[in-house]
Parts: sequence; C-alpha cells; structure tokens
Amino acid sequence: MNAPSEPFSTRIKVCFSDIDNAGIVYYPRFLHYFHLAMEEFFINELQIDFADVLHTRNVSLPTVHIEADFRQKLKYGDRIDMEVRILELGRSSIRWGYKGYRQVGGEGLVVEGNNVTVCVRTDSFEKIDVPDWLRAGLDAYTARLETARSPS
Amino acid sequence: MNAPSEPFSTRIKVCFSDIDNAGIVYYPRFLHYFHLAMEEFFINELQIDFADVLHTRNVSLPTVHIEADFRQKLKYGDRIDMEVRILELGRSSIRWGYKGYRQVGGEGLVVEGNNVTVCVRTDSFEKIDVPDWLRAGLDAYTARLETARSPS
Amino acid sequence: MNAPSEPFSTRIKVCFSDIDNAGIVYYPRFLHYFHLAMEEFFINELQIDFADVLHTRNVSLPTVHIEADFRQKLKYGDRIDMEVRILELGRSSIRWGYKGYRQVGGEGLVVEGNNVTVCVRTDSFEKIDVPDWLRAGLDAYTARLETARSPS
Amino acid sequence: MNAPSEPFSTRIKVCFSDIDNAGIVYYPRFLHYFHLAMEEFFINELQIDFADVLHTRNVSLPTVHIEADFRQKLKYGDRIDMEVRILELGRSSIRWGYKGYRQVGGEGLVVEGNNVTVCVRTDSFEKIDVPDWLRAGLDAYTARLETARSPS
Repeated sequence: MNAPSEPFSTRIKVCFSDIDNAGIVYYPRFLHYFHLAMEEFFINELQIDFADVLHTRNVSLPTVHIEADFRQKLKYGDRIDMEVRILELGRSSIRWGYKGYRQVGGEGLVVEGNNVTVCVRTDSFEKIDVPDWLRAGLDAYTARLETARSPS
Repeated sequence: MNAPSEPFSTRIKVCFSDIDNAGIVYYPRFLHYFHLAMEEFFINELQIDFADVLHTRNVSLPTVHIEADFRQKLKYGDRIDMEVRILELGRSSIRWGYKGYRQVGGEGLVVEGNNVTVCVRTDSFEKIDVPDWLRAGLDAYTARLETARSPS
Repeated sequence: MNAPSEPFSTRIKVCFSDIDNAGIVYYPRFLHYFHLAMEEFFINELQIDFADVLHTRNVSLPTVHIEADFRQKLKYGDRIDMEVRILELGRSSIRWGYKGYRQVGGEGLVVEGNNVTVCVRTDSFEKIDVPDWLRAGLDAYTARLETARSPS
Repeated sequence: MNAPSEPFSTRIKVCFSDIDNAGIVYYPRFLHYFHLAMEEFFINELQIDFADVLHTRNVSLPTVHIEADFRQKLKYGDRIDMEVRILELGRSSIRWGYKGYRQVGGEGLVVEGNNVTVCVRTDSFEKIDVPDWLRAGLDAYTARLETARSPS
C-alpha cells in the first residue's frame, strides 16, 4: 500500500462513541488509536496477525510508558491517517512512534506520541528478549524506510 | 476524607471490561482512570460537579499532553487508590499529577503519570485563562498539602 | 445495605466518557451498567468476587440474550440506582433482571432490561449446570425478597 | 458494493480491547458493532455522513429498545460481516435489524438483533417524525431488496 519511502499508515475513523461530553475525542481513545494502528502494522507490514502473536507465538507486548501530544481536536466524522514507526529497538523493549494526520483538509499533525512495550510470555508474563522473528521484521521495516530516504 | 497532609485520593475498581486480550488492564484505560480521578477531585475536593464545570460554567479542559509509566500490571478484581496533585498551574494550563497504588497487598506504585489540560470555553473552544474560581480552589488544595508538610 | 424486602441495588455514576456525540449515554453503555451491577451483586449479595468466579471457581457467564428498554435519557452527572433480580433460574441458564432509577429528582425508571447467561467453564467454554454454590446463593436471594413480600 | 438482492453489509474486526476477562467479546460491544454498522449504512447506502445527520440536519436517533441473541462466541482476530435491514418504519420510529456472520469458516450466524430508534432534534431532543429525506432513503433501500427478491 505504502510507497517504499513512506512509513506504514492506517486510516482511522472517529466513531460516534469516541466523542466525550466536551464534544471531542476522549483523549484516552487516542491511545486506543495507537493500539489499533499497531495491530494493523502487525498484519499489514509484518504479515502476522496480532492475535497470533499473543496466542500462537505466546508473546504479549504490555506498555510500560506512554507519552503523547494532542495538537488539534478531533470531532465525530473526522478521519486520521496514523503512521507507525520503530523509534528504538532494545533487548526486550520496543519504542513505537505514532503520528496522526487529519485526512481531509490537510491541516497537518493532529496527534503525536510514542509508547514503550516490553516483550513477555503471554502465559506467564515472564520478560523475554524481543523474539528473532519480530526483531527481523522490525529491522526490515526500519531499513526499508532508511534506504528510501538515503541519497543515491 | 483525606487527612490534611494527604493528597486527594479515590478508589478505582478494575472492572471486567477493562481487561484486554492479554489478561491485564488495557493501557488506555489507565488514562480513563486518571480522568475519573480528576472528576472525583472536582466534586470531592473542590465541591464542584465536573458536569457543571462543562455545562454551567462553560469551561472544558481538553488534554494537550500526557505521559505515564505503568509499573505493575493490574488484573480484574484489583483496586487502586489514585492520588491527584496539581504539579503546575499556568496562565491557561494545568499540569495534573496522578499516582495509583494497589490497595490490597501494599506493593506500592502501580501507575504514575501527568497530563496538561488547557482551559477553553465549552461552547466555542476558545482558549481562556484558568478561571478565578478554579485557580483559587487549586491554590487552596496545594497550600493545604504544603502547609501540612512544613515543619512547625 | 438493602432492607430485607428490597432487591440488591447499586449506584452508578454516568461518567464523562459514557456520553456520546448526541450528548446522552451511548446505549451500549447501559448494558455495561447491567454488567457492573451484576459484578457488584456477586461481591455484595453473594460475598463472592466475580474475578474469583471466573478464575478460581472456573465459571464464566457469557450472555446469550439481551433485551432492554430505555425510558429516559441520561446525561453526564446523572446517577442511577440499578436493581438486580433473578427472573429465571434454569438448569444451566440464569435470567437476570435490571431496573435503573434516577437517583435525584425521583422521576422513576430510566432503564429496564434482562439478559440470559449460561454457565460455562472458563478454561474450556464447556457448558455446565449452574453450580450448587451459585444456585444456593441465588435461591437464598430470591427467597429473601419473596419472604419479605409475603403477608404475615 | 453489495449486489441488488443483498442487504447492506459491513465488515467489523474484533479488536484487542473488545475482549473481556472471559476471553471473548464483551457483550455490550456487540451493540457497539450494531451502531458502527448503522453509521456505515448511512454513509455507504444513503450517502449521508451520520455526523451530518446529527449536526447539520439536526436529527438524532436515540435507541429506546434493544434485543439481541448471541449465538457464537467471538474472539480477538475474528471478523464479522454485519448486515443492516429496516424491519419497521413508523411515524417517528425505526426498527433496525442486524445479523452478524463470521467471515472466515462460514459457520453462520454469530449475532442477531434489532433496535428501535426514535427521531428527535439533536438540539432540543424534541420528538419529530422521521424526516422525509430519511424515509425516502430507507424506503428505497427496502424496495431494492424486495424487488430483487421478487420472481419476475
């Protein structure tokens, strides 16, 4: 879907129930959008269903840190394109980066954030190293983006 | 409820539907817990219903920044005491601090975070200064905590 | 808490994020309130934590049928008292009844509904009979209400 | 998208956070799926964004009744095709029918239900007749399905 130089991106529609009593997206829902984007990243970029990650490969990715900036309000009916990047790949942790852009109107960045997940076994919650298959997939993704950006 | 030296705290029960498919609290729910604690802070510490803040006083507090660390996993059946503090009080912004402690077992801090809200008019979303009634309430709360901590 | 003649009831506050973009409680949230009330019924009326039902006693109660009528709109800041009754107790199924009353103003019934749950093993989802400990608790609850209603 | 003889249908993915602590879709989420399907019906079948219905056309559709049967459990990773039908079109009320089929495996019906909405003004919540533009759209949809089913 995405050109070689472009990060993985997925379109998210603000649904009716995401709106809070101030008339805008309830801010914890943005973190839900981050998670949805990560789920889509797994299936579309790595070709692995996140449900299989959890239940077949026995790997969970609990979040230990989150930070985010909300630059524009979103309303019901808005759509954003949420980009996913790998900011850091540690021994057992991954820092994921997210940038959400309003689809219509081109007014730029709506939300930007990152979270750190650690790898644990789903069944025991024992901390583990980033599995090889995941490290390889994330490295390949990062390499694709960097190669595309490099001058020829 | 709270002793003079103690920050406002409210008890939150992890409900059945807060749990995700990895068997722990879905991390965006922690931000929801922060918001619930802020709502309780308004009614219990400031004696103002947050619904009145929005709709009678015409003030909304959208979040523009969030950061949080998740130090322990929470499971269904757990209860946490969530403390609320005022970390910074700017011209139109407020930085709220949250610390959540597991109630049973005394194993210490479960989640810690802060968010920055800006004051806007509910009807127009126009940015405004922190209203006097709110500044006075937050200052009084902070003063109570600091006085209690001061040596006699 | 409740008088002998009164059904179990728990107070639920409409929280900020329960409101949808039409300014009222998003109707699926009412079913969530039903579930919250059932969770409170277990711990307060039967003295069994619902988390223990699931994970220690290995019993889950998936819902196979729901129906509900929404008679008044609820707004942020509203509180309702949600009553729980046992309408039918079958071999493996339970029909739970719920009635929610607005706390302030006494305007009567807000929501009324019932759902049917079946008993299954949490680990295998195999259908089972209503366990004896649960049947005994539900029978005792129903008997308490009926005795209280009977003329002396 | 859909053939003339087929009802409107939209694909819904069970997301990570829809799962509850019993490992299946939290049943109130099915009602959320019904609502999502109705939102998609408006934009795809009637060519009207539901946000515009609410805020431009000033019409809200609060639900006054719901009933549903849950015939199979859904897990994370499952996808369902949710069909939308108009079961009754009254003076101010609409009864919507929903049927959800598991996409993969063809095991048939997962969930079936219907809800009744009434038409009100978004700004005042005053009850109104079904607006002409909506009645015409719903009638055309129903006529399309019936024509396709009629023998020539």
